[in-house]
Amino acid sequence: MLEFKVEKTSSECKARTGTLKLNHGEVKTPIFMPVGTRASVRAMTCDELKEIGSQIILGNTYHLYLRPGEEIMREAGGLNKFMNWDKPILTDSGGFQVFSLSRQRKITEEGVHFRSHIDGSKHFISPEKSIDIQNFLGSDIMMAFDECVPYPASYDYTKDSMLRTLRWLERCIKHNKNDNQALFGIIQGGMYKDLRKYSAEKTTAFDLSGFSIGGLSVGEPKDMMVELLHYTTQFMPINKPRYLMGVGSPDYLFEAVEAGVDMADCVLPTRIARNGTAISYNGKLVLKNAKYRKDFRPIDENCSCYACKNHSRAYIRHLISVNEILAARLLTIHNLYFLLDLMKNIRSSIEEDRFLEYKKEFYDSYGY
Amino acid sequence: MLEFKVEKTSSECKARTGTLKLNHGEVKTPIFMPVGTRASVRAMTCDELKEIGSQIILGNTYHLYLRPGEEIMREAGGLNKFMNWDKPILTDSGGFQVFSLSRQRKITEEGVHFRSHIDGSKHFISPEKSIDIQNFLGSDIMMAFDECVPYPASYDYTKDSMLRTLRWLERCIKHNKNDNQALFGIIQGGMYKDLRKYSAEKTTAFDLSGFSIGGLSVGEPKDMMVELLHYTTQFMPINKPRYLMGVGSPDYLFEAVEAGVDMADCVLPTRIARNGTAISYNGKLVLKNAKYRKDFRPIDENCSCYACKNHSRAYIRHLISVNEILAARLLTIHNLYFLLDLMKNIRSSIEEDRFLEYKKEFYDSYGY
Repeated sequence: MLEFKVEKTSSECKARTGTLKLNHGEVKTPIFMPVGTRASVRAMTCDELKEIGSQIILGNTYHLYLRPGEEIMREAGGLNKFMNWDKPILTDSGGFQVFSLSRQRKITEEGVHFRSHIDGSKHFISPEKSIDIQNFLGSDIMMAFDECVPYPASYDYTKDSMLRTLRWLERCIKHNKNDNQALFGIIQGGMYKDLRKYSAEKTTAFDLSGFSIGGLSVGEPKDMMVELLHYTTQFMPINKPRYLMGVGSPDYLFEAVEAGVDMADCVLPTRIARNGTAISYNGKLVLKNAKYRKDFRPIDENCSCYACKNHSRAYIRHLISVNEILAARLLTIHNLYFLLDLMKNIRSSIEEDRFLEYKKEFYDSYGY
Repeated sequence: MLEFKVEKTSSECKARTGTLKLNHGEVKTPIFMPVGTRASVRAMTCDELKEIGSQIILGNTYHLYLRPGEEIMREAGGLNKFMNWDKPILTDSGGFQVFSLSRQRKITEEGVHFRSHIDGSKHFISPEKSIDIQNFLGSDIMMAFDECVPYPASYDYTKDSMLRTLRWLERCIKHNKNDNQALFGIIQGGMYKDLRKYSAEKTTAFDLSGFSIGGLSVGEPKDMMVELLHYTTQFMPINKPRYLMGVGSPDYLFEAVEAGVDMADCVLPTRIARNGTAISYNGKLVLKNAKYRKDFRPIDENCSCYACKNHSRAYIRHLISVNEILAARLLTIHNLYFLLDLMKNIRSSIEEDRFLEYKKEFYDSYGY
């Protein structure tokens, strides 16, 4: 099940608010989705995810297919039950990891042969297989199997890949056994406008629940990303949710919302947390730096997250320097809370029709 | 401040219940104390420690002296404030780690010269220095500086060391700047009864708040430990708390309580948690084993901890196998909850004067 309603659209740009109704509950958009790669958002419990306001999380099809695998996941009754998360889940198609992580991959029209990055075992994922996996994971929103073309890539490679992704999309739609799980098609086309246009028009011609934008934020310059993003969303229907894959830095989230994007995800906030970095309204704090050793202020005095309400920069810096698990926990809580809070503020600013003003305020205080 | 009141003593053995009044609150004994080595009980927040019923935690003087060090700890206003823990803290003397972890240590009458196990830097800890550190840490209970003699050790070495520990105790008492922090003397004497008796009598002759038993559970056979423990406690005053250092397996806790011990600590439950092992009333579960991969029961169906109320063995086993932080978190919560709950049950059994019966029941169900 998926119902989407656009509620308020900015008078100055494509930014909009909306509500997504899914099997496991409602999601207010625009939204940032924490990534629970292997049935766990790293360092977080499900209750903590709820406490910081997570409405929907991601699961990675590739990782969950390899471990714990189909048999355990089926017996558990799907991903929600397995990890005890009762709110919506979005699963990716596995395509991104097959292409970026696996070894000795060979792409054919039929699908992708590859070896596991863990133990070298041989596997094959096709559009049908990806949907099968997502069916037994039981996610609220599934992604069609696609190839995420790296940057840079030649025009011919990008075109061939994009056309194959379109053919794979048809097979995904045909193969899906559970109409109650929403299926999104993914727009590709690399950095080439005509390919983006073609992919967007053909993908959105299918009667799907929503549409994703893949293959952006893969290493290209920011200007190029922003231009292609705006270029792409103009070909996407207004009444369907738009999901920009793999974006999670504050500025990219603002650009995405400005271009009319409703959903985004990224491992960035949790990854840099484990690496000792906090994000705040005043910019990044590399807390492992010695300058914080006697700084007894919270990460952000105006933040209401558990870390900021209870602990000092000096304490967190100490935890990082002695490699305590609590460091990763506190910084993950803070960074996810920050991004979810930021998206809430962005939503309010759209409701008040002052999104661009809020964007400018944020950029000034963040230091972009 | 320390007040101790024995409340109920078993009619069959030396087991007893009591209440310790400390600067940061009351502690019901017998008690197991989680170890917060470097200003953090690994993988746990302070709120989680309270939720599972922790009344007092340990801090390690050696580790905290090296990192974050005196300057930061003083500016933070002590260990409680630094880590935001508002209940009692007990600090060890640093002796155990100086002798077991440091490099190139040289014991003199004055104190111990050693190199840090982290960076090889040179340090010197004397009885006075140990008390200075514990004074600025601000713990509720401090330990006098001692040498924990390894097992096996010769009679002569053990005797010389024990006599020096007694001389160091006098210096600790003389040097202590804060009468409001309770100071415990540590009984040593290795595996030699006459040395234990001598150490116990001389140590307890000082007017101290309580007394610890060190140098047991250091690798000697269980029978020997139990015999020496019972032998030692008979020379300890009834009206002062007795602390057995470094004990945390369920059977050793029962033996300790039976011998009249009030307090114990150990890193065992948190260490084996991070290694994928759970402790329960039905014995140990090595959850990383493949046999749990499709076991959708909780670790212990009768346990009320967060892990058991929310997650299955299969899920935790998956988290272990993919090396997720949440595995260590859930198992640490469970293992600490189990030991604190066990001590609560032990306390009740003493109150009901059925401690030995309860011990037998537990040994039967645990499988000893």
